[in-house]
Amino acid sequence: MERTKWWGWGLENKSYGLKENKKILSYLQEKLELDPKEYLALKFEGIQLPQTSIPKEIIAEMSMLTKVCTDKYERLTHCMGKGYKDLTRIRKGEISKAPEIVAYPESCEELEKILSYAKEKKLKIVPFGGGTSVVGGVETTCEGTICIDMKKLNKILSIDNISHTAKAQAGILGPELEEKLNQEGFTLGHFPQSFEHSTLGGWIATRAAGQNSTKYGKIEDMIEALTMHYPDGKITTKTTPASASGPDIKQLIIGSEGTLGIITEATIRLHPIPESKHYCGFLLKNFEEGTESLRTIIQAEIIPAVARLSDPEETKAMMKLGSSEKNFLESLVKDTLKFYLRKKGYGEEACMLILGFEGPKDKVKLDFKKSKKIIKGTYLGKSPGEQWHKKRFELPYLRDEMLDLGILVDTLESATNWSNIIKLYSKTKEAIEQAIGSYNVKGFVQTHISHCYTEGASLYYTFVAKEIKGKEIEQWTAIKRKATQAILENGGTISHHHGIGLEHADWTEAEHGKKGTELLKKMKECLDPDNILNPGKLIR
Amino acid sequence: MERTKWWGWGLENKSYGLKENKKILSYLQEKLELDPKEYLALKFEGIQLPQTSIPKEIIAEMSMLTKVCTDKYERLTHCMGKGYKDLTRIRKGEISKAPEIVAYPESCEELEKILSYAKEKKLKIVPFGGGTSVVGGVETTCEGTICIDMKKLNKILSIDNISHTAKAQAGILGPELEEKLNQEGFTLGHFPQSFEHSTLGGWIATRAAGQNSTKYGKIEDMIEALTMHYPDGKITTKTTPASASGPDIKQLIIGSEGTLGIITEATIRLHPIPESKHYCGFLLKNFEEGTESLRTIIQAEIIPAVARLSDPEETKAMMKLGSSEKNFLESLVKDTLKFYLRKKGYGEEACMLILGFEGPKDKVKLDFKKSKKIIKGTYLGKSPGEQWHKKRFELPYLRDEMLDLGILVDTLESATNWSNIIKLYSKTKEAIEQAIGSYNVKGFVQTHISHCYTEGASLYYTFVAKEIKGKEIEQWTAIKRKATQAILENGGTISHHHGIGLEHADWTEAEHGKKGTELLKKMKECLDPDNILNPGKLIR
Repeated sequence: MERTKWWGWGLENKSYGLKENKKILSYLQEKLELDPKEYLALKFEGIQLPQTSIPKEIIAEMSMLTKVCTDKYERLTHCMGKGYKDLTRIRKGEISKAPEIVAYPESCEELEKILSYAKEKKLKIVPFGGGTSVVGGVETTCEGTICIDMKKLNKILSIDNISHTAKAQAGILGPELEEKLNQEGFTLGHFPQSFEHSTLGGWIATRAAGQNSTKYGKIEDMIEALTMHYPDGKITTKTTPASASGPDIKQLIIGSEGTLGIITEATIRLHPIPESKHYCGFLLKNFEEGTESLRTIIQAEIIPAVARLSDPEETKAMMKLGSSEKNFLESLVKDTLKFYLRKKGYGEEACMLILGFEGPKDKVKLDFKKSKKIIKGTYLGKSPGEQWHKKRFELPYLRDEMLDLGILVDTLESATNWSNIIKLYSKTKEAIEQAIGSYNVKGFVQTHISHCYTEGASLYYTFVAKEIKGKEIEQWTAIKRKATQAILENGGTISHHHGIGLEHADWTEAEHGKKGTELLKKMKECLDPDNILNPGKLIR
Repeated sequence: MERTKWWGWGLENKSYGLKENKKILSYLQEKLELDPKEYLALKFEGIQLPQTSIPKEIIAEMSMLTKVCTDKYERLTHCMGKGYKDLTRIRKGEISKAPEIVAYPESCEELEKILSYAKEKKLKIVPFGGGTSVVGGVETTCEGTICIDMKKLNKILSIDNISHTAKAQAGILGPELEEKLNQEGFTLGHFPQSFEHSTLGGWIATRAAGQNSTKYGKIEDMIEALTMHYPDGKITTKTTPASASGPDIKQLIIGSEGTLGIITEATIRLHPIPESKHYCGFLLKNFEEGTESLRTIIQAEIIPAVARLSDPEETKAMMKLGSSEKNFLESLVKDTLKFYLRKKGYGEEACMLILGFEGPKDKVKLDFKKSKKIIKGTYLGKSPGEQWHKKRFELPYLRDEMLDLGILVDTLESATNWSNIIKLYSKTKEAIEQAIGSYNVKGFVQTHISHCYTEGASLYYTFVAKEIKGKEIEQWTAIKRKATQAILENGGTISHHHGIGLEHADWTEAEHGKKGTELLKKMKECLDPDNILNPGKLIR
């Protein structure tokens, strides 16, 4: 198996190729006024992990129960997630806590033993799927922590070809799961940006959304039943399409972020592999008009799998990023097309809309035809959609190389109703821009609308700024706090699909209210009275 | 306002007209070998309610807070729901408990005062919407009970034409709500059989499903946000299309059946009034083939609003019931058509499938065309679908008149995955038939599949038997218990849309497990530590 990067995203030998891409480099240079800088030389040997505080007997006893690792690479790659704050601290060697042991249970029986043992010894547990959290969801916060990596619990236990469901273990990675489902003619339809490196259990624990959620739903819509192990036992929810037997306990477990137990199995709802796909792009005159078009489509029962409207800033960046390719995006910047588009009224405010239709051939055709009629913009053909689809998992690799250049880059997201979306969009953007500006550095914010519902959609922000050396975390924290405040003040949810983890836990009460938060605490008391599971996450 | 029946379903002056319908009468006579019997003369004057035990000061103090009623009609119509067990006890005058006071708060402020007062005085509270529960959800179980009727909290507070949502008070009745939404071009799409007499709050509290749920979802899919008042305060969940901010507290409140608090407001997801509707019928050779056809349609992304497959027993009854009408169903029993259908292989096992498509014209057309191609049966035209649609709220009125004739008649329902549906269907049917037979009386069971999902569907049973005089409740209880046991033993949920109430509370732990039930109890402790809210419901 290829090793994953300890200092960045995904596999060690894979990069985006920024260093060779003069167009993007000069774009970033121009926008951010970067200092000429040597590429950071990251040396594994230079990283110091905190000393192990756990007695040797415990390691010995644990290794009787399951496969355990205590070496530096394992501890380092399991000490936190993949957010900007995480990678920045790791690159600087600022690691205050790391798990003492990384356990790899190969069966639920092993997992049960680990949980009982941890409870007995009062050890802390961090459940770990793919470790791609960008909100501190897998960070070690205490000494005496066992990180339970679920990736060996990765079997598909059964596929029900009649009911279009499958039962799978939680540690299965996105590509493994899809490949096996594809072999049987199915897809789950869940493709988050982290797809290649995240697990089913992680998706469920964080209420993830895939890029195709407009059609297939968020992960909470895809789970028919699940099993969660807590220190004294397990809960298995009823396998039923729906029920009226009281409150929905499954929806309490989904999103519990490893604080109530470890999700070990799930029965997932499948779809036949789409007979037809049509990914394409449109250019809209401005963000407001694009939003209107998108809303009109969705509310007319046209349900694309992917619906993604970039704001002017992101649209420009997409054109730049794509411009080294021999594709439509290249031609867009050609003078003749520019002239044509300008004449039609597309200027600095132009916005790109990517739509991806999937499903039965006749429906894909009908939905595309109707969308084209509704959208007040120019159809750009398939190329933008297909290019986006091809590169949809790659941006986190670009981030690694931007970090090398001393660039602060991270994302955050929210959701709100259509009637509030432009307000939330601009207020949050403004707050981020102000926070960047307050440090007297250059930066920019790109946004898109995605994950559409009849009543609203998600807003996804990428913010980029020149790093202030030695103050990176402070600078990032200032932006993050201002953005979250703006989100809450303007009717957004603190997260549509990243989760709460550590980074949003200060606002859990603002989101759920005092009594709502008390309810969550009661659930915790019931399942994990010793507070050994993922301490500090979800609730302060 | 017209008065509702204290002894039966709906409005006092409305009946199904069984007494005049010789065909149905003789059908029932033949199937059940009924004794010739006088129609029961039900006299309001003859009904004795338990004495009021509550001190007069409390009534006086309560009447300072809100509108209160203590008269016999109000107490009687609020003492229990509308299940067979309820109506039988009421008709026999066997009423052991009734609310002492029926309160009609006109504002949330009034409701808050009632709740605080009840908490202070340790009075029990039964929240009451339309009172149509068939599982004992609104039954008075304790002395000193205040029934809070929510029907005066029935305003639509706002409609968001951009986001396609509305905020409404929980006490609004189905027809009031739909009418006001229709005026703005919208529908909620929620039409349970109780539609005319049930409320938004009641739907939410019980996880109701409307007859059009295959397209529009169950009530839990229609709620974007809600407010619930509990004795010390209120919880309002975030208005957001979706979220990843931890467990979904809203889904803990939905289905809580008034045991955690009283749902007072909800933001509901709307749909444009469908541009086109196509309701129609098909005849299938047998139930298995019908199930296969239905499953194939749903899994091919064809989503009718109504999808309802009757088993042979129900199909025959539908033909009989419809045969006094000048419509297709009449012609079906004509000899020529009978001959034609027999020649095509339709015999005693034939099953009726009702499909109702709703939505944009082109999609309705396409979905109908594709369904016709997939279904291995004979298309019967629009008439059966339209007839069903016309009469879809009327069967509970027929029940009243069957009770007059000494017939035990009730319904129950479950849900399971497609791969298990035939097994659950036959095992439960068998259990009910055996239970009926064990009393040495004639009876029959009719079933349909409805409320379809890609992975499964609901099964809905109507069971009918000759009553054993003086032993009606015992007889009913025996059937109910055997059926529920069979459902649980064969992988069904104890309820898909009726709820738990009193009647299923013995099986809450079987459904949710020990720890799941403990979680529900913890929630109760958190919100209603004095156990004043709807005691005995949901959890024993």
